[in-house]
Amino acid sequence: MTLPELTAGQFDLVYNLLSLAIAAMLASFAFFVMARQQLTPKYRPAMIMSSLVVGIAAYHYWRIFNSWEAAYELTAAGSYVASGEPFNDAYRYVDWLLTVPLLVAELVAVLALPKGRRGSLMGRLIIASALMVGLGYPGEVSADVATRVIWAVASTIPFTYILYVLWTELSKAAADNNEEVKGLLRNTKLLLLATWGFYPIAYAMPLLGVGGATAIVALQVGYSIADITAKCGYGVMIYHIARAKMAAEADAELIDTAVAAK
Amino acid sequence: MTLPELTAGQFDLVYNLLSLAIAAMLASFAFFVMARQQLTPKYRPAMIMSSLVVGIAAYHYWRIFNSWEAAYELTAAGSYVASGEPFNDAYRYVDWLLTVPLLVAELVAVLALPKGRRGSLMGRLIIASALMVGLGYPGEVSADVATRVIWAVASTIPFTYILYVLWTELSKAAADNNEEVKGLLRNTKLLLLATWGFYPIAYAMPLLGVGGATAIVALQVGYSIADITAKCGYGVMIYHIARAKMAAEADAELIDTAVAAK
Repeated sequence: MTLPELTAGQFDLVYNLLSLAIAAMLASFAFFVMARQQLTPKYRPAMIMSSLVVGIAAYHYWRIFNSWEAAYELTAAGSYVASGEPFNDAYRYVDWLLTVPLLVAELVAVLALPKGRRGSLMGRLIIASALMVGLGYPGEVSADVATRVIWAVASTIPFTYILYVLWTELSKAAADNNEEVKGLLRNTKLLLLATWGFYPIAYAMPLLGVGGATAIVALQVGYSIADITAKCGYGVMIYHIARAKMAAEADAELIDTAVAAK
Repeated sequence: MTLPELTAGQFDLVYNLLSLAIAAMLASFAFFVMARQQLTPKYRPAMIMSSLVVGIAAYHYWRIFNSWEAAYELTAAGSYVASGEPFNDAYRYVDWLLTVPLLVAELVAVLALPKGRRGSLMGRLIIASALMVGLGYPGEVSADVATRVIWAVASTIPFTYILYVLWTELSKAAADNNEEVKGLLRNTKLLLLATWGFYPIAYAMPLLGVGGATAIVALQVGYSIADITAKCGYGVMIYHIARAKMAAEADAELIDTAVAAK
């Protein structure tokens, strides 16, 4: 792909958003590492996974930022043109290959299910999400419309399976929680659906004839905002689920003690 | 060794896999550091060793990535040719010299054997694994077939000794664990055998007449995948062994308490 000429405003918008993403990921890493100690041990694995997700993303945004900077050079007229260095978009796919399975795993982990049930649910979701990302890549790097469509369809199969598992099995497994926890879980799943929904739209842009400077800027801005929401925001939601579950458990313990004292 | 010309696809595959290895090693480092606090103190040394292994590997993959980038330059035609800078493959051997003894030591450490038995087992395995790596290196850097074969044979002697110790003495030392722990231990040893088995195959490739662009790409891809599996995956297995042993101990404690209460 040859990189289109950008105005200084367009180049700077992407440049500053990529930097914002690095800052958000690093700060979230520090938050999740510390926040895990605000939780009882059984909820800590979910926070550990959250911290790995944003740690991995911080590394990749660092690389993407450097690659963006190297791929363009400022002209005397004040616009930005391709420098000849390639802009490596594969960093995003490598990132998703590692972080997307962790994102679904942390949603299962925060439920703190019995070991047998947790293992099966987590295993299937991890495999499906790695397949979803892996099958999308050959289409992403292809300029041929038919190839893009075929891999897009292939990638949609595991995506549909993930949504099915989250809205049926996972909801059932979480059925014995109180209304507050169930409400938070619902919102977390909707956040996941809304942010993950952006990626196929971005993927489809070349098919819809969107190209040039507008397309590349919209894509980088969109991916960055989606990643910050789906990783940092989502991890904060997971933290709140764990806190709500801890509060419910503390209430149950108080009731047990009161009943025993009667 | 002169570096062969690569297509952009070949160069990028190695480039992105080396970057993936850096991300995987860094994330695993954060994981093992935090996961150690999910374990009782006697299992923590195994997690500390795991974190050192992936920490050392993250450093070396960073160096290998930079060396790979510097060793090639993009031509106007879009292919990659040697830049004149050497590609330093010795980083891998330095890495293994430090990490391979730690990998066998963490398998002994997670068994939490009595001090006398642990020390002897660990000492012999550490020496044998350092010898295995050290004896392989003179063959790796030699272009002469006879030299490669001689050092390969020398290196195989400690390798065979390690396998012998793991499958006899270590199995005996772990005999008083429950079936779940023994199953996990067996899988961990098989993972070690399968991943370590790749290195001699890679080593033998020049002897088998495999060369050129395909050989260097296959070698770098293979080494990276083997390292991620043998270090990150293996460390996660060790964590699960520790958790399974803790669960067994907690059960035994509950039974003891119940018996004492009768």
